[in-house]
Amino acid sequence: MKKPVSLLVLTACLLSTSLASAGDADLRATAKGLFKPIPATAAEIKANPHNDYKLRLGHMLYFEPRLSASQLISCQTCHNVGLAGADLQETSTGHGWQKGPRNAPTTYNAVFNTAQFWDGRAADLKEQAKGPVQASVEMNNKPAMVEKTLKSIPEYVDLFAKAFPGEKDPVNFENMAKAIELFEATLLTPNDGLDRFMAGDDKALTAEQKEGLQLFVDTGCAGCHDGVNLGGTDYFPFGVVEQPGAELLPPGDKGRFAVTNTSKDEYVFRSPALRNIALTAPYFHSGKVWSLQDAVAVMGSSQLGAELSEAQAVKITRFLEALSGDQPEVLHPVLPPSTASTPRPDLSALPTAAH
Amino acid sequence: MKKPVSLLVLTACLLSTSLASAGDADLRATAKGLFKPIPATAAEIKANPHNDYKLRLGHMLYFEPRLSASQLISCQTCHNVGLAGADLQETSTGHGWQKGPRNAPTTYNAVFNTAQFWDGRAADLKEQAKGPVQASVEMNNKPAMVEKTLKSIPEYVDLFAKAFPGEKDPVNFENMAKAIELFEATLLTPNDGLDRFMAGDDKALTAEQKEGLQLFVDTGCAGCHDGVNLGGTDYFPFGVVEQPGAELLPPGDKGRFAVTNTSKDEYVFRSPALRNIALTAPYFHSGKVWSLQDAVAVMGSSQLGAELSEAQAVKITRFLEALSGDQPEVLHPVLPPSTASTPRPDLSALPTAAH
Repeated sequence: MKKPVSLLVLTACLLSTSLASAGDADLRATAKGLFKPIPATAAEIKANPHNDYKLRLGHMLYFEPRLSASQLISCQTCHNVGLAGADLQETSTGHGWQKGPRNAPTTYNAVFNTAQFWDGRAADLKEQAKGPVQASVEMNNKPAMVEKTLKSIPEYVDLFAKAFPGEKDPVNFENMAKAIELFEATLLTPNDGLDRFMAGDDKALTAEQKEGLQLFVDTGCAGCHDGVNLGGTDYFPFGVVEQPGAELLPPGDKGRFAVTNTSKDEYVFRSPALRNIALTAPYFHSGKVWSLQDAVAVMGSSQLGAELSEAQAVKITRFLEALSGDQPEVLHPVLPPSTASTPRPDLSALPTAAH
Repeated sequence: MKKPVSLLVLTACLLSTSLASAGDADLRATAKGLFKPIPATAAEIKANPHNDYKLRLGHMLYFEPRLSASQLISCQTCHNVGLAGADLQETSTGHGWQKGPRNAPTTYNAVFNTAQFWDGRAADLKEQAKGPVQASVEMNNKPAMVEKTLKSIPEYVDLFAKAFPGEKDPVNFENMAKAIELFEATLLTPNDGLDRFMAGDDKALTAEQKEGLQLFVDTGCAGCHDGVNLGGTDYFPFGVVEQPGAELLPPGDKGRFAVTNTSKDEYVFRSPALRNIALTAPYFHSGKVWSLQDAVAVMGSSQLGAELSEAQAVKITRFLEALSGDQPEVLHPVLPPSTASTPRPDLSALPTAAH
């Protein structure tokens, strides 16, 4: 009577394997319907075609403190390539130790966002790059001053000419932004757990992370957090179902309302991208929540109207932890020295007309 | 009669070549008697032997803003590896946008200095590294807080254990400083014009730079600026012959007097190292002089009692410009994320007892 038992065991084993595979295959199909992987290299930006000089220039300018009035603050200050393209602050600190109004979103994979800033007020990374340079609470500078500074440094004059061949006056604020955009488009984090799972590796996510992914889809998170970046492509009210308190949603910051001036955009923000989210605490535009699991719970009640159980929040958090990809290896560029005609650092705390 | 003319020309040529070579050879011998080249790799620090984990740790800690109370300021902030190991400021800006008392000396080649800081109050780079972390106008932190922060991050706990094998409690302030010292000892700039000239390359200095080198020796500059770093090894009054005005020598900063409390040390400072000096304006401990040629002229009158002619100051400046060596290629390290037990950034402007 041994044979039937063996057959039974064998059948059970096959069935179990097949069930597990079917589960993974279904989950993979669901994931691939909602998300797209981070590519290993950046796609060409049509309006800003690649050349090596421009990329090198953008790399230097990203780290260039002379873009700020104080000559102390660069893109890198708040979008630190050692810290997954963000900083460690609730909201960023800028010129004169002023505290900015919102948490710094990461520059990593930001090229895949539909628009930039929490309120989407910049159409692309090029437009975005111009903002902080001029914001009085950030770099507190003026385009004319940036151009004067860059033109005073022969290495930059030479590099702008090579980066923008054929242009009469290539050292300008617009080209500064284009070069930075091109560099930022290289800050990608491929090969995270989700992407490896979608590519066919069943072991790229743990059982708990797979359950978290399933919950992420089933409870509706993926409604706002989908696409390449799991977010960053559309606008939603913070508080679809239940508005959080003033601690998380300061009444002075009405989000996209400031851009569109229409009442339906009050407290509307671009859904943040979730790639590398476990590396970029604290959370929300106010930066008031430090624990990713707490942030997941807040999202459940405010956006989905679903009180997630602690077990569910843990599983979704484990899934979000699988969104940390390969961090780019970035060389710190060597920057050229100032010259006699380079403007001096201006540390005065208030924006002045004399710039 | 052609032959004698040809012979004459030939003789003249040989004589000229031989004279030039003799001039170069003499100058080289003089230079080699006073200066030593920057090596391509760091020598072992006896009290702090190398291991790869410690070097990697030091590299990370040099860029680690969580060593500061605000979590915004790292060694790199004032000793920028893109800016020849210094910043662009008269005197550095630190916690709460406070202006520090002195110009940031470069970390590059600093391992060859006899002592650290403008007043030599730290014996070596390890002792130096502890200073800015605790200074209220710089990083405004406390050793216990640094240790708590580093212990809250598993990647650091692991790396300290590997960097300091066999130690019971390796994550401590002393070991932080040791790791940073080891990394800083790799920040070397070999192959500058002077070193290539000393190594036998007659063309490594221009004719003007050779004249500048000769003047540098003849007028007495090399009396305080000699050795590997052309300075950094001994103490001298600012104003050996004639004390500069309060603009360059603020009366509130009496230099080494604050360390030794003996009157002969009033306004005494360590002679600054001159390697890469053309890359690290502004000059002097007060950072009040922006032009290298102006700094040379001030040194002539205050230290040597010699009014240098403009032509002489230009030649010496050209020579100093030949002291810019190969800048190290430094990767920006990827830093590990904070955890729930990591202390939060504290941006309050005044040092608090609660640290």
